[in-house]
Amino acid sequence: MGGDHGPSVVIPAVARALTELPDTVCFLLHGDEAALAPAVAQHAGAAGRVTIRHAERVIGMDEKPAQALRRGKGTSMWNAVEAVREGEAAAAISAGNTGALMAISKLILRMSADLDRPALVAPIPSPKGFTSFLDVGANVDCDAERLVEFAIMGEAYHRAAYGKARPTIGLLNVGAEEMKGHDEVREAHRVLREGGFDLDYRGFVEGDDITKGTVDVVVTDGFTGNVALKAMEGALRLITSELRAALTSGPLATAGALLARGALTQFRERMNRPPAAPLLGLNGLVLKVHGGASGRDFAQALRVAVDLAQSDFAAEIERNMGRLPAALAETSAEPAPDGAI
Amino acid sequence: MGGDHGPSVVIPAVARALTELPDTVCFLLHGDEAALAPAVAQHAGAAGRVTIRHAERVIGMDEKPAQALRRGKGTSMWNAVEAVREGEAAAAISAGNTGALMAISKLILRMSADLDRPALVAPIPSPKGFTSFLDVGANVDCDAERLVEFAIMGEAYHRAAYGKARPTIGLLNVGAEEMKGHDEVREAHRVLREGGFDLDYRGFVEGDDITKGTVDVVVTDGFTGNVALKAMEGALRLITSELRAALTSGPLATAGALLARGALTQFRERMNRPPAAPLLGLNGLVLKVHGGASGRDFAQALRVAVDLAQSDFAAEIERNMGRLPAALAETSAEPAPDGAI
Repeated sequence: MGGDHGPSVVIPAVARALTELPDTVCFLLHGDEAALAPAVAQHAGAAGRVTIRHAERVIGMDEKPAQALRRGKGTSMWNAVEAVREGEAAAAISAGNTGALMAISKLILRMSADLDRPALVAPIPSPKGFTSFLDVGANVDCDAERLVEFAIMGEAYHRAAYGKARPTIGLLNVGAEEMKGHDEVREAHRVLREGGFDLDYRGFVEGDDITKGTVDVVVTDGFTGNVALKAMEGALRLITSELRAALTSGPLATAGALLARGALTQFRERMNRPPAAPLLGLNGLVLKVHGGASGRDFAQALRVAVDLAQSDFAAEIERNMGRLPAALAETSAEPAPDGAI
Repeated sequence: MGGDHGPSVVIPAVARALTELPDTVCFLLHGDEAALAPAVAQHAGAAGRVTIRHAERVIGMDEKPAQALRRGKGTSMWNAVEAVREGEAAAAISAGNTGALMAISKLILRMSADLDRPALVAPIPSPKGFTSFLDVGANVDCDAERLVEFAIMGEAYHRAAYGKARPTIGLLNVGAEEMKGHDEVREAHRVLREGGFDLDYRGFVEGDDITKGTVDVVVTDGFTGNVALKAMEGALRLITSELRAALTSGPLATAGALLARGALTQFRERMNRPPAAPLLGLNGLVLKVHGGASGRDFAQALRVAVDLAQSDFAAEIERNMGRLPAALAETSAEPAPDGAI
C-alpha cells in the first residue's frame, strides 16, 4: 500500500515478477483487499501464487517512527514484517515510510548486529554499475566495531544483489594515507586489514570514489553517509534544474534540447534508478524500495529480494561476524599512531 | 608561481585587477623574476603598483605538507605568507599546493582559533548564488566549540565576500529535529541558539540544503565536510561524463548537443567557477584559489582578498569569539537529552 503510487505500481510489478521469476516464488500482498483483489484478478498467473492478506489500516508516509510503533499493529506494513518473523515469508518488501519500516522491523525482528537501528545501503551509480554505500540509515555514533560490521554486511549484500563473486571494500576517509582520519576510522582500518576476515578490503577511499566505482562497497558512519548521500542528491537536483534552465534559455538551445531529449531521458533514468535496499542487521530480510519507484523498479526489487533470500547472504555475514571479537581483541593492543593529520 | 597554469594566469589576473580595483591597491609578486618581469612589463598600469620579489624556489604541487615545511623557507609561497606576518601585505593569495599552504601559513602566522589547522570554506553553487560550506579543510575531530568557531568565521567571511549584511547559518545534521545527531552537533546547536552571539543562526540543515541555498553558511566538522564536498564533486563529474556519453550516443543526440552547446558551456561555467577561499583561524589573511583557476577566477580572488582586507571581517570574528567562553559555560550545565535518534 506504500510509496507514492501504492498498488498501482506494486500489482503490475508482481505480475511482471510472476512471469520472470521461477514459479516456486509466491507473494503475500498485505493491504486493502477491496483495492487489491480486482487488480490481482486481472493477472492470470496470479492464481495460486498470490495471496492477499487483508489489513484494515496503513502507515502514512508522514507518520513519525514513534507514532508508527504505537499504532502500527495490524497495518499492512506491520503484518508484512510479522510474516517474516513467523516464517511465512522469506522477505518483506515495502515502498512505504522508511523511518516507520525501520522502527517496526527493529521491534518485530530485533537486531542481530549491535547497532542502534538497521543499517541502510544506498546504491550509487558509477561508470562500473553501482557502488553499495552504507550506512545511510543514520546510525550516528559508530565506533570501529560498527564500521567493520557495515563492511561485512555490505559486502555480502553486494554479492547477493549484483552477483559479483568477490566485492571490494573501501573505508571512507579524508585521504588515502594510513595516518588520516579520526580514531574510529583508523581502528576500523586496522581491524579490517589484520582481522583475518574473508573480505577483499582495499583500504581508505575518499568522497569522490563513491561515484568513481573505485571499490564495490564504500563504508562510513551513518552521520557522514546520510550527509554525503543527501549532498549528492542535492547536487544532482541542482544540476538537473540548471541544465533545464540552460537548455531552454534560447531558441537554438531549446531546439538542441528537443533533439537530445532521448539521450537526456536515458541519462536521467540511469542516475535515478533505485534498486531495492535491504535493512541490514535484522534477524530477517526486509527491503526498502524508493517511494517514487516505478513498476519496473519494484519488479527489480522483487528479484533482488529473491536473490537475497536464496543466497548465502545471512550465513556469510554470520561467518565474518564470528571473527569480529577476536579481530578486535588482536588489534586493540596496538597503540594509535601519534600526529595524525 | 603555483596552480596548474602559474604566471600565465596570475599576471593577466593582476593586470585586470589593476584596472578594476582602486589604485591604492598594490601587488607583491613572489617568484622567478626572470619569468615574471617581462610579463609584468607588458602592462602599462603595473608601474609603481606591482613589485616583484624574487624567489629562487617554488613548492611543488605534489609536495607533502611536512616536506614543504622542511624545505619551504625562501620559496615563493613561504615569502608571500611571511609578507603578511611582516605587515608588508594585507593578504597572501596562492593557487598552489593546498596542504603546503595550510602548513606554512599555520607555522608562520600561527592559529588564532583553537583548531588543529586552518578551516577552509568551499563555495557551493545554489539557486541563490553560493553557499559557504565549512570546514572542508580536514579538521577531523571537532567538538561543539570548534563547530561554533566555524559558524562565527564562516558568517563573517560570507558577509565580506558576498556583501550580504546578515548571512544566515545552518548546522549540518541528519535531520531537522532537535533530538537528531551526535552530542557535538546538538551541543553546538544549543550554544549557537542560546549563546547571545551576533549571528542569524537558523538551526539544523541536511545534506541537500547545501545546494538548495536554504542558508548562506553551512557548518560541519572537517571530516563530514571533506567527504560531502568530494562526494558532490564526484557526482558532478559522473553526471558530466554520462551526459557527454548520452549526448553523443547517436546522430540526433549529437546534433542536439551541438545546438545546445552554448547553454551547456554556460551551465558548466557556473557549476565550476570557484571564488577564492580563505584559510580561516589564522592571525592574518591567506586565500587559496583553485589550482585550475582561470585568469578571471584569479582576478575575482584578488577582489575578494581586497574586500576581506578592507572589511571588519577580523574584528567581527573577534567580537563573536569573545562571547564563546561564556556561551559554552552557560549551556554546558544543561543535561544532554536522552534517547536521541
